[in-house]
Amino acid sequence: MSGGLPVDPWSLREPALDLGRLGQLESLFALSNGHIGLRGNLDEGEPNETPGTYVSGVFERHPLPYPEGGYGYPEAGQTMVNVTNGKLLRLLVDDEPFDVRYGRLVSHERELDLQEGTLHRQVEWVSPSGKPIRIKSTRLVSFVQRAIAAVSYVVEAVEETRVILQSELVANEAPPAVDSRDPRVAAALEDPFIAVGQDLEQTGAVLVHRTRKSGQQLAAGMDHDIECDAQFEIENDARSDWARTTIVTLLRPGEKLKVVKFLAYGWSTTRSAPALRDQVAAALTAARHTGWNLLRLSQREYLDEFWGGADVEVEGDPVIQQAVRYALFQVLQSGARTEGRAIGAKGLTGTGYNGHTFWDIEGFVLPVLTLTAPKAAADALRWRASTLGKARERARTLGLEGAAFPWRTVDGEETSAYWPAGTAAFHIGADIARAFEEYRLGTGDEELERDTGLEVLVETARLWHSLGHHDRHGRWHVDGVTGPDEYTALVDDNVFTNLMAANNLRAAADACVRQPLGAENAHVTTEEIAAWRDAAEAVHVPYDVELGVHPQCENFTRFAEWDFEAAADRYPLMLHEPYFQLYRKQVVKQADLVLAMHWFPDAFTDEEKARNFDYYERRTVRDSSLSASSQAVVAADVGQLDLAHEYLHEAALVDLHDLHGNSANGLHIASLAGAWIVIVEGFGGLRRADGVLHLDPVLPDQISRLSFRLRWRGARVQVEITRQEVTCRILGEQDAAIPLVVYGERVQVTPLQAVVRPLRRREALLPRPPQPPGRPPRVGA
Amino acid sequence: MSGGLPVDPWSLREPALDLGRLGQLESLFALSNGHIGLRGNLDEGEPNETPGTYVSGVFERHPLPYPEGGYGYPEAGQTMVNVTNGKLLRLLVDDEPFDVRYGRLVSHERELDLQEGTLHRQVEWVSPSGKPIRIKSTRLVSFVQRAIAAVSYVVEAVEETRVILQSELVANEAPPAVDSRDPRVAAALEDPFIAVGQDLEQTGAVLVHRTRKSGQQLAAGMDHDIECDAQFEIENDARSDWARTTIVTLLRPGEKLKVVKFLAYGWSTTRSAPALRDQVAAALTAARHTGWNLLRLSQREYLDEFWGGADVEVEGDPVIQQAVRYALFQVLQSGARTEGRAIGAKGLTGTGYNGHTFWDIEGFVLPVLTLTAPKAAADALRWRASTLGKARERARTLGLEGAAFPWRTVDGEETSAYWPAGTAAFHIGADIARAFEEYRLGTGDEELERDTGLEVLVETARLWHSLGHHDRHGRWHVDGVTGPDEYTALVDDNVFTNLMAANNLRAAADACVRQPLGAENAHVTTEEIAAWRDAAEAVHVPYDVELGVHPQCENFTRFAEWDFEAAADRYPLMLHEPYFQLYRKQVVKQADLVLAMHWFPDAFTDEEKARNFDYYERRTVRDSSLSASSQAVVAADVGQLDLAHEYLHEAALVDLHDLHGNSANGLHIASLAGAWIVIVEGFGGLRRADGVLHLDPVLPDQISRLSFRLRWRGARVQVEITRQEVTCRILGEQDAAIPLVVYGERVQVTPLQAVVRPLRRREALLPRPPQPPGRPPRVGA
Repeated sequence: MSGGLPVDPWSLREPALDLGRLGQLESLFALSNGHIGLRGNLDEGEPNETPGTYVSGVFERHPLPYPEGGYGYPEAGQTMVNVTNGKLLRLLVDDEPFDVRYGRLVSHERELDLQEGTLHRQVEWVSPSGKPIRIKSTRLVSFVQRAIAAVSYVVEAVEETRVILQSELVANEAPPAVDSRDPRVAAALEDPFIAVGQDLEQTGAVLVHRTRKSGQQLAAGMDHDIECDAQFEIENDARSDWARTTIVTLLRPGEKLKVVKFLAYGWSTTRSAPALRDQVAAALTAARHTGWNLLRLSQREYLDEFWGGADVEVEGDPVIQQAVRYALFQVLQSGARTEGRAIGAKGLTGTGYNGHTFWDIEGFVLPVLTLTAPKAAADALRWRASTLGKARERARTLGLEGAAFPWRTVDGEETSAYWPAGTAAFHIGADIARAFEEYRLGTGDEELERDTGLEVLVETARLWHSLGHHDRHGRWHVDGVTGPDEYTALVDDNVFTNLMAANNLRAAADACVRQPLGAENAHVTTEEIAAWRDAAEAVHVPYDVELGVHPQCENFTRFAEWDFEAAADRYPLMLHEPYFQLYRKQVVKQADLVLAMHWFPDAFTDEEKARNFDYYERRTVRDSSLSASSQAVVAADVGQLDLAHEYLHEAALVDLHDLHGNSANGLHIASLAGAWIVIVEGFGGLRRADGVLHLDPVLPDQISRLSFRLRWRGARVQVEITRQEVTCRILGEQDAAIPLVVYGERVQVTPLQAVVRPLRRREALLPRPPQPPGRPPRVGA
Repeated sequence: MSGGLPVDPWSLREPALDLGRLGQLESLFALSNGHIGLRGNLDEGEPNETPGTYVSGVFERHPLPYPEGGYGYPEAGQTMVNVTNGKLLRLLVDDEPFDVRYGRLVSHERELDLQEGTLHRQVEWVSPSGKPIRIKSTRLVSFVQRAIAAVSYVVEAVEETRVILQSELVANEAPPAVDSRDPRVAAALEDPFIAVGQDLEQTGAVLVHRTRKSGQQLAAGMDHDIECDAQFEIENDARSDWARTTIVTLLRPGEKLKVVKFLAYGWSTTRSAPALRDQVAAALTAARHTGWNLLRLSQREYLDEFWGGADVEVEGDPVIQQAVRYALFQVLQSGARTEGRAIGAKGLTGTGYNGHTFWDIEGFVLPVLTLTAPKAAADALRWRASTLGKARERARTLGLEGAAFPWRTVDGEETSAYWPAGTAAFHIGADIARAFEEYRLGTGDEELERDTGLEVLVETARLWHSLGHHDRHGRWHVDGVTGPDEYTALVDDNVFTNLMAANNLRAAADACVRQPLGAENAHVTTEEIAAWRDAAEAVHVPYDVELGVHPQCENFTRFAEWDFEAAADRYPLMLHEPYFQLYRKQVVKQADLVLAMHWFPDAFTDEEKARNFDYYERRTVRDSSLSASSQAVVAADVGQLDLAHEYLHEAALVDLHDLHGNSANGLHIASLAGAWIVIVEGFGGLRRADGVLHLDPVLPDQISRLSFRLRWRGARVQVEITRQEVTCRILGEQDAAIPLVVYGERVQVTPLQAVVRPLRRREALLPRPPQPPGRPPRVGA
């Protein structure tokens, strides 16, 4: 068992319903293709913790009035809304509603199949008046037909039973008791939609709604394929906020009613209601034409293709085997088909963070998608580039050059209401630039850079150039910004930020050399490029000579120590301690200097890495789920393999074990992506330098064999690590050889010729460091 | 003329009504005794910009929900409310309402008499139908009878006229169009009161109301003495939100109706409505018993006594002569009779800053009151001490020892909704401690310290001790706080803050030695005292050796320079630039390092002062009205007398010339206090060191003779500076001699023997520094 659920390499199974974990399981069983997201709510709708159906990019605006305002504060918030719910299939058994809270639940099993991309449910239930019934449902959100989700729902009679199935579309569902103390957010969530129109078809309906303030028009449609062993009748009805298709039949023992419900969604701010209605109707017709079986088959094919270039095999640690595959599946779901919209920090699995996208995506999710589902990464990057106009405007508002991408947003507009941990975290721009670079290096695709990437690189470089300045000795500084560690805000010369800025500046300069025409179009001069290189060259990286460590920002190692003992029962600290205290002491929320070492391994010597890691391990409380994976990678880098393995657990099990106690609000997609990063970059030692794949594999004692696949410049690479040796292969047919650097040795791999090297051990320079009291790695149970 | 009004040494006169400046004049003509405040609204109520009647301490609560909340954020805001308006006297002339906007205003003069403490108004008006009338009113808020205000209102007929005078009390007046964009504040201001009861008397009424959320009960009463050359009738009426006494008469040419309206206010959160009603009725009876003439006389006597120990004579600069007396008068009004309540940053002259008290009071106002109206200073300090419980609780919330006084408040509870420029400005605690010390030194009164001051010193010292820390070399630092300059927030080792902290720690240690019993009661140990002295001794004061100046905080002189040229038309900067940009650049809102030099003149050498002043003058934009006076004092100190004189103008004329464009919201009491500080500490060179008065007088070229008085340990000292010599006298009868240090020479002054010394010149070490473009001293016109 892992997190209370059975361990299985390819599925997540809940053998019996646990109403106490309803919300967490709604998130864990969420299905999504990146465009449509369905929480794992029960088919019959109730009980639920949070009913959730989401369509990427559909949100509502609400005012953000500040008790004390300030120039440049965003005035409007954005909240992802629960759209028209089409998952609903309400069953009446001899007029008694099927509800797991009543009657007797003989058995109730749910299973998410990671190879099929389907959520199965199997129920035996006895109604309060004693009538037994069997239900089987299978739900999918199609990776192939982007606008489509579908449910196969089968009712089987045990005794003669009158069965009434109500298949519904419901808009403006009552929101759950809102945990937001802000009445404006609550208002945005309550009745977000105005009905625009509704159309009945013979076996379905389409509802069209419009959000009140953001002015988005949404069409949701359903249609049904019905098979029944007995005669049945259909009724169809639609009102402003709901539509219902009712099927009535009388089943004898063993007889079944099989319904396939097709769902389609479409939205637009510009297209008309009739156009949207027709678009959805067309999607439904196409899906019915494809049919349930082919829809399932194509789902499997899509996933086979994905796993073929992404799968991880972990021998000796079945918990991680399951967790890493689950993690990767959810990472894929979050971004597979967003196509022109942002990926939220929680994908489409819940309303945590209001559905906003953060640096989580470019920093952690896209590097993984780049190596496993590159088209999804490209789509997400194209979305980001499409918001350049808003980012330029934001930079102007802030008195800066170039483009200032938002800290949190749905549509590209900054909506962060606390600027010290929002706008001031300018590293988001460099995170985005890095994601473009990783994509270019990993895929070999130069087109994205030509189309949009160059402009992003140039505009982010311009931002950095206007953010930083040279001191009287020529050193280049970035003052008053916030790095990844949100417990130390508005600092000078954050090492991570400065390295990222320099990297961004160099990448832009190099890109301009590669793309002279694009550079000219962007009015980049040679003087500008020279200034970028100058700044990058002169970047100041503070170092504490006395302690022999890098302060994560100027002065950090001189700050007072945090009293970890006293606060050991007050995690996460931000809920129990004022920012004021956190900011001025040596307490670190999440990998910051350690993240700098993860992303810039060549900027530190081995000794520096070991000492820095030792220093920050003792001071990092991991109140952010983004932290464990980077700590794991650097732990592996400095030879702390046990610790790396433990952090891998923490990153991978974040939601399966509900380690932050808030998985019910949605999954921690970046932490899940981080699990794959730990495997590949931590144990695989994968680095991208000068466009060549470097591997420096190690194997922790807890894993007997580790294998991972990834896509590199069109090829599929597999790396297999056993206790004895490392094998690098090219999978499938591939003309060209792939150059690799394994343990520092330049080699070529071809489909016919694998590279095999003996496994090397890595010794730690320092003993294993302790973590703050109360914050050892959460290995889960 | 000065600020469009005639220059007069003892009054402020508006010769003709200017409706375009209505709001500013409402503030300028505000009357207050520190308990009751009446804005200078016209007797007939309309037109007005902001109708305002305030009672010290009466406020309403409103929620402060944050778009992004945080631990320890204050949840409730406080807003001073406009209480029951008793100033209203509506006149009907042959049934036509007297309204300056209609008919013909033949003449309209108002004059605030600074010796009498009265506001006079004289009007000749012809009604729209052609009936001329003469009106004279005189208004006062009694310094002697704290609960009482009064208006003498005289109507004189020119032709036969039916005169109807409605004297009113009105609660829940419609607020002006609220400039707050926050709907919650607007809600708190609209109908803040619930009617509790009303009582009619024969010639008056009492209304009792209760605030909705803060639960304060307020009684407002009026009564009238009526004299009339003709027969008259009275009617009396009262409803829940208003009461009206109507006087009807028919006047023949030359006949007069004279009404004296007495107003009384009382409030409590604990006493019953009947008790409050009776309290107000008693105050009214007492006032009628005293009568108008004696009330006026006692007002004059009170002010004679005040001016006798406070007046400033300025020859050669009549604008300053008037402005400084006006300033001092308003400073007195703000605090004369608060007695147990806070003094707001705008006194009781307007709703700016929601009526909150800030460090303005302890930092600038109380040091002046200490030397001119010491009882008022003691009362304000006692109020502060009475809030120790709340300040202790706040410190606990913040994880600190001792007491954390609020940045802004009405009742002692922190209500600052932006912590980087609120809670983080911990210097407020040291400002308070310093005000207690200044009071003890200036008055020789040890009782206040024994009663409450010691506890304040001890608890603020404890706060500092828990705020600061020793680094590995033993230096003591205070990190992550905000000093006076709100354009540079959350900094390490702000010089001003560190010096203030050290001063606070030493003062507490010394006080504990003076008051061993009190120290024991406060559980102060000798170890604790030793720790305070250690920290104070080891306090870190950063210094930039290369530039030879003190950075106002760690790293400051390394920050990027602000582009003053580009922003020269964007003052005040906080309305046009993001905090983010301001914080990380070398732009200073208000005297910070310069204030440190003002308050700690001995902590800097003359050369350091000259260089520091030169450095910060070029970077200080004075977007705070608290700045000019300290810049003036230090300018005088470094021999920049012309500049000091210009800054004196800016400080003194802040409201008379509406230099910040917001005097309509209330007067800048601390800036007004600053005008006196410039005279006394800047030109008089007054310092308090070791309990002895030091004088180091200079005279700017623009002033031919300067004389000021102050109270020092029970005596009245007069210092007279002419171009030739300096004379120090004791006024009145005084047994003991007063030791003084004049130009470094220790002397004794007695009532019989003045000390006369030749005036010295002070040479500047450096040329006059420029100010940022667009920010030269505002001398007014």
